[in-house]
Amino acid sequence: MLNIDNLTRFELNKRSFEEVLFPTVITKEFFGKEKEHIKGFDSQVYWVTKAGESLLEKPLVLRPTSETAMYPMFALWIRSHADLPLKIYQFVNVYRYETKQTRSFIRVREIHFFEAHTCHENYDSAEKQITEYFEIIKSLTRKLCLPYIATKRPDWDKFPGAFYSIGFDVLMPTGKTLQIASVHQYKENFSMVYNIKYENIAGEHKYVHQTTFGMSERLIGAIISIHKDERGLILPPEIAPTQLVIVPIFVKELEAKEVLKVANEIKQELEVNRFRVKLDDRKEITPGNKFYYWERRGVPLRIEIGPNEVKAKTISFVKRTGKSRIVCPKEELIEKAKILFSQLQNEIYDRAKNFLKNNIKTLRSLKNLKKLGIYRVFWCGKRICALELENKLGMNVLGLELDSHEKEEKCITCNEPSNTVIYLAKTY
Amino acid sequence: MLNIDNLTRFELNKRSFEEVLFPTVITKEFFGKEKEHIKGFDSQVYWVTKAGESLLEKPLVLRPTSETAMYPMFALWIRSHADLPLKIYQFVNVYRYETKQTRSFIRVREIHFFEAHTCHENYDSAEKQITEYFEIIKSLTRKLCLPYIATKRPDWDKFPGAFYSIGFDVLMPTGKTLQIASVHQYKENFSMVYNIKYENIAGEHKYVHQTTFGMSERLIGAIISIHKDERGLILPPEIAPTQLVIVPIFVKELEAKEVLKVANEIKQELEVNRFRVKLDDRKEITPGNKFYYWERRGVPLRIEIGPNEVKAKTISFVKRTGKSRIVCPKEELIEKAKILFSQLQNEIYDRAKNFLKNNIKTLRSLKNLKKLGIYRVFWCGKRICALELENKLGMNVLGLELDSHEKEEKCITCNEPSNTVIYLAKTY
Repeated sequence: MLNIDNLTRFELNKRSFEEVLFPTVITKEFFGKEKEHIKGFDSQVYWVTKAGESLLEKPLVLRPTSETAMYPMFALWIRSHADLPLKIYQFVNVYRYETKQTRSFIRVREIHFFEAHTCHENYDSAEKQITEYFEIIKSLTRKLCLPYIATKRPDWDKFPGAFYSIGFDVLMPTGKTLQIASVHQYKENFSMVYNIKYENIAGEHKYVHQTTFGMSERLIGAIISIHKDERGLILPPEIAPTQLVIVPIFVKELEAKEVLKVANEIKQELEVNRFRVKLDDRKEITPGNKFYYWERRGVPLRIEIGPNEVKAKTISFVKRTGKSRIVCPKEELIEKAKILFSQLQNEIYDRAKNFLKNNIKTLRSLKNLKKLGIYRVFWCGKRICALELENKLGMNVLGLELDSHEKEEKCITCNEPSNTVIYLAKTY
Repeated sequence: MLNIDNLTRFELNKRSFEEVLFPTVITKEFFGKEKEHIKGFDSQVYWVTKAGESLLEKPLVLRPTSETAMYPMFALWIRSHADLPLKIYQFVNVYRYETKQTRSFIRVREIHFFEAHTCHENYDSAEKQITEYFEIIKSLTRKLCLPYIATKRPDWDKFPGAFYSIGFDVLMPTGKTLQIASVHQYKENFSMVYNIKYENIAGEHKYVHQTTFGMSERLIGAIISIHKDERGLILPPEIAPTQLVIVPIFVKELEAKEVLKVANEIKQELEVNRFRVKLDDRKEITPGNKFYYWERRGVPLRIEIGPNEVKAKTISFVKRTGKSRIVCPKEELIEKAKILFSQLQNEIYDRAKNFLKNNIKTLRSLKNLKKLGIYRVFWCGKRICALELENKLGMNVLGLELDSHEKEEKCITCNEPSNTVIYLAKTY
């Protein structure tokens, strides 16, 4: 997770975001200001009511998200157009009282959370921020090897208080989708409540336009579920805690010293080049068992060093996605490792991408339905038609297709003309 | 704070620690197991008692520290001597219900916290860990330019549940000390309660010996208080969010283009070399006001670029601790910046070190007392003598001098022979 956080930091810092840390607890007064927001979260928040033996005069909420902690501060920080755009983010834990069955990484009550918040002069500038979020998500998910579909959530499912919300969903091997990111346009909905104003060049006081972008430990849930085979986990190299494991192999005790010496040299060279590498020199375990041990844990590359490699001055790699040895001269170690990482990354990305593509079907009739995967459906825009469809399919509306330019067809429920496409799936 | 965290990470990872993230909330059952520990924290913990509209069946504690969250897991993770030493750490927020007046960074209720936890086969191995903590603290505080004194806390002031505690205190400009780190030897005190056992080579089941090491945002409190002058903050280069600021200077609009071009080149070269740098190209503010702006914020180095520098292909630096310009050829930019950082770091460290040294006095009589600073006093070992001394001086015992080899003198309170030295100070 920390490696994912660091990739995220890299993308955000590059785009002039600054990292902050706001408090976990929020007073009832601040939390209660935005009515829609509260309605959305009220049943889910944890309350701190007692400290030591005393009841607190003012009970505190454990943040379910940080709008209500941050925005009173934004109102103090922002004075003029020179203070805009304000672009900040934080990695924190948030708390949601889930009454449904919990599930590791996917539905938990204390959530490792990423949230970016921005303020802008006007709607257009905020819309440009949304575009930037798309770039960040594209770049990041490519490194995590997670292809997704992005849809605009229907109005009844948007973030509480948002003007609109966009969800990013991956397709899990079970055929159900999992939301891994979301992006929200708030317009002036929060700034009017928290009184976040700036003075423009003409000297007028205006409310800022705001956006947010969130992700969570669900990214790990998606990675673990999607990147695997019969031998276990396959970790994308960019985030693997151990990127390479070196397994020394020798038959005679005489060979051991030389093999371990070379293994250590290789380890050192990889470390100098900022790879995360482990040398498994345990004596009580056979090489075969070591292979199995590290494969299960998803380590992307294995290096085997035996007397042959020492003698020939070569490196033998085995990719986590294959079984055969790939041999190169010792001096090409770093270069070859990079190539193999890139290959493995493409392999697991492409496999997931194909799985997603093959499981999106455009549905024009409700006959011969498959039970899982994602459906694309024409829809007239009426909530009642969507609800009926959800019931018939036993699925949820993910959202509306973005940039839809298809020619008009008919709403699958009511037959009225429609050029809006929605996506439906069973969801986690 | 994040830069300090990263320096800490670097020291810990180098010594085979692994980073973890444990939950914020702890059940009453886990929290209540170690009796001394609870006694120490019971009056300070926040309780989560409600979620949505429901009262929780099992109220939850917001962690005041993480022993009681981690150790039930350690009991599952550790099986044999091959699992030892276990060395982990985390950066999290902890919560303590302070009834005293709060003070930014120094006494707060939600604390940005670092905690390392280790398990070992025996007492000796745990003692070696304590030695390693000393190395880490020495290396880290040198980068933060924070000289300290380390003392063994008296028994009545050790961490609740510890066998012994060592405190690391800095001397603030007010003459009061601030604890910035602590290290604890737990022996088997917690492992016996949380049943953390391992099987040794002989096949016997033994309790592990444990240690911890903690720091907090007080590090920032110390840095801000100690490193300053009449112009404001002076940040140690290793942690300054902005390490260098470039201020372009030009009289005529004609010169502007060329000056800004060179300023941008310099910025880029610094960034490539991993410096944190800002170019202040604001038009509405004069260079003089920019100097003032960045000085107040503690930026360690300023680069001034005007037509002269452009023409002569030189760089003009001004150190935050000085006023005069230091000029070097443009091609020596990186090298010179590193030298100046190192100089500045030594300057502010030495200044703080001298201040600390000059304010530790060995006290042999209670006449002519200064009101502030640190006193070294011979003490017989009886709590009542220490209490009397605390009352007379209006100070607290910090702790016992480590490695004390002085020849025997007399307890300042009762005149009994003593070769134990304690330190006293007013404390935050």
